[in-house]
Amino acid sequence: MAVYTDINEVDLKDFLQAYDTGELLSFKGIAEGVENSNFLLHTDRFPLILTLYEKRVDENDLPFYLGLMQHLAERGISCPLPLPRSDGALYGQLCGRPAALISFLEGMWLRKSEARHCRELGVALARMHIAGQDFPLRRENALSLKGWVDLWDKSAARADEVQSGLESEISEELALLEDRWPVDLPEGVIHADLFPDNVFFIGDTLSGVIDFYFACNDFLAYDLAVCLNAWCFEKDRSFNVTKAKALIEGYQSVRPLSAAEIEALPLLARGSALRFFLTRLYDWLTTPEGALVVKKDPLEYLRYLRFHRSVKSAGEYGLS
Amino acid sequence: MAVYTDINEVDLKDFLQAYDTGELLSFKGIAEGVENSNFLLHTDRFPLILTLYEKRVDENDLPFYLGLMQHLAERGISCPLPLPRSDGALYGQLCGRPAALISFLEGMWLRKSEARHCRELGVALARMHIAGQDFPLRRENALSLKGWVDLWDKSAARADEVQSGLESEISEELALLEDRWPVDLPEGVIHADLFPDNVFFIGDTLSGVIDFYFACNDFLAYDLAVCLNAWCFEKDRSFNVTKAKALIEGYQSVRPLSAAEIEALPLLARGSALRFFLTRLYDWLTTPEGALVVKKDPLEYLRYLRFHRSVKSAGEYGLS
Repeated sequence: MAVYTDINEVDLKDFLQAYDTGELLSFKGIAEGVENSNFLLHTDRFPLILTLYEKRVDENDLPFYLGLMQHLAERGISCPLPLPRSDGALYGQLCGRPAALISFLEGMWLRKSEARHCRELGVALARMHIAGQDFPLRRENALSLKGWVDLWDKSAARADEVQSGLESEISEELALLEDRWPVDLPEGVIHADLFPDNVFFIGDTLSGVIDFYFACNDFLAYDLAVCLNAWCFEKDRSFNVTKAKALIEGYQSVRPLSAAEIEALPLLARGSALRFFLTRLYDWLTTPEGALVVKKDPLEYLRYLRFHRSVKSAGEYGLS
Repeated sequence: MAVYTDINEVDLKDFLQAYDTGELLSFKGIAEGVENSNFLLHTDRFPLILTLYEKRVDENDLPFYLGLMQHLAERGISCPLPLPRSDGALYGQLCGRPAALISFLEGMWLRKSEARHCRELGVALARMHIAGQDFPLRRENALSLKGWVDLWDKSAARADEVQSGLESEISEELALLEDRWPVDLPEGVIHADLFPDNVFFIGDTLSGVIDFYFACNDFLAYDLAVCLNAWCFEKDRSFNVTKAKALIEGYQSVRPLSAAEIEALPLLARGSALRFFLTRLYDWLTTPEGALVVKKDPLEYLRYLRFHRSVKSAGEYGLS
């Protein structure tokens, strides 16, 4: 559920003065997303999404996120396009928060995705990676190795409260990943959070990708590893190799992976599983009871991490 | 925040087969309303609201609510129009819940209403009362005198936990209202919950009334008394007589009040304040800590109740 900040019609109309949107007809808070407050606006010309950036998004990163969306949209990637203000800025201020107007993308995120959707996802991901190659801004991945160490430092002492033995298992995993993490794979702008709720479909056709608020520069293959975790495990937490194969084949139909990327994939998937495990664990330990945000179980990602640890080579992900 | 039930695209498309909506392009949960789960749908033809009725709405009452909306819309009242299924029914089943598709009304509810909006509200309320006169179904007001007694029976013993002295004050008030409650004022279908978030405006023009899920048969003037409570107190809980005057004048410009209705208005306003006090008190005492619903302070309505108790005649509401 995500409307942390309510807005009123007087402040909103004031905010919209700087834009060329036509007459405002309605606005409604949307119960999706967990980082920001989102509203769907109808004007007499088009629907729009209004996003108020809450404290988890650093305002200094907004030029990167919004500029990236503009950059990708100009290169034919279907993603939300920030509407510029009359002064050219891509965001303003509303209710004391940075706020942007972005185009509304039709489409639905799939609660029940299938292998054919994973193939579409792979194609779109590779296209996005290529389109991002000449994006001039940079943003380090705050949730890569160093970020994991920081998160773990804050959670390790209480990890065994969640499951006995966690402290030693995760400490060992982190030490191994620090030791073996790749250093020279192809890099570029990655989405870094491409879960099903950030990918829209109309029928079986991918209609758009949203939520670039974790985008950063990192290994391109790491983004694929995130999708392996986010899309290829079933509700019973078993790995669906048919989905993984479709995802990777779709990706490679646009951007073939190098031998080094293929070799690194199981390790990247371990790292990605650890990343989501650690943020969930931190939230689990620090979110007060009764908060509006539904806490997600970190142990789901512990299970995925263990699966990837058991993988001997990327062939087990369906690569032929 | 109100998405209690998430839906998936497979079940939704199945549900939509019984309707003539065109192709579904998107659906998003809406963070408004507290009784039901609401989604905004875009199709290639028009936007729609999908409402899933949660347990607080009795399915046996749906023909009344949905039939009333249809009846009022046919008589030119701007309210949501239920879309009939191909078999003529006004609702179906989705995720094990009764679910209806209703037309999307443009407009915004006002966080900062002014007297001119109260006048518009009064006009719309009176028109709705007249348009409802020939609606053939009946529904008793479950939250009138008898309902108050039932609610109070469940809360009285713990009322002093909320504020010392409440138990005796409310018991006396309830006894007085039982003794003096009118018996022969003009009756009809009333909305019974016409708070600002149920009334939409585009600019200063009232564009529609929503949420008929408390509608019932009762004294027409009681509906006006609800609006006095819901619209005419400021954030500092002071009574704004300018707004009350505008509301009542707007109402009387369409449907003049009888002398008996005017005389009863302070008592009806006491009853209405008590009704919202009692439901809030009950929720306050029974909603578990940490529930997704934000608990509303019952003492706000105690304050309004005391104000109306001090009113000697309807003249104090601005009636000339």
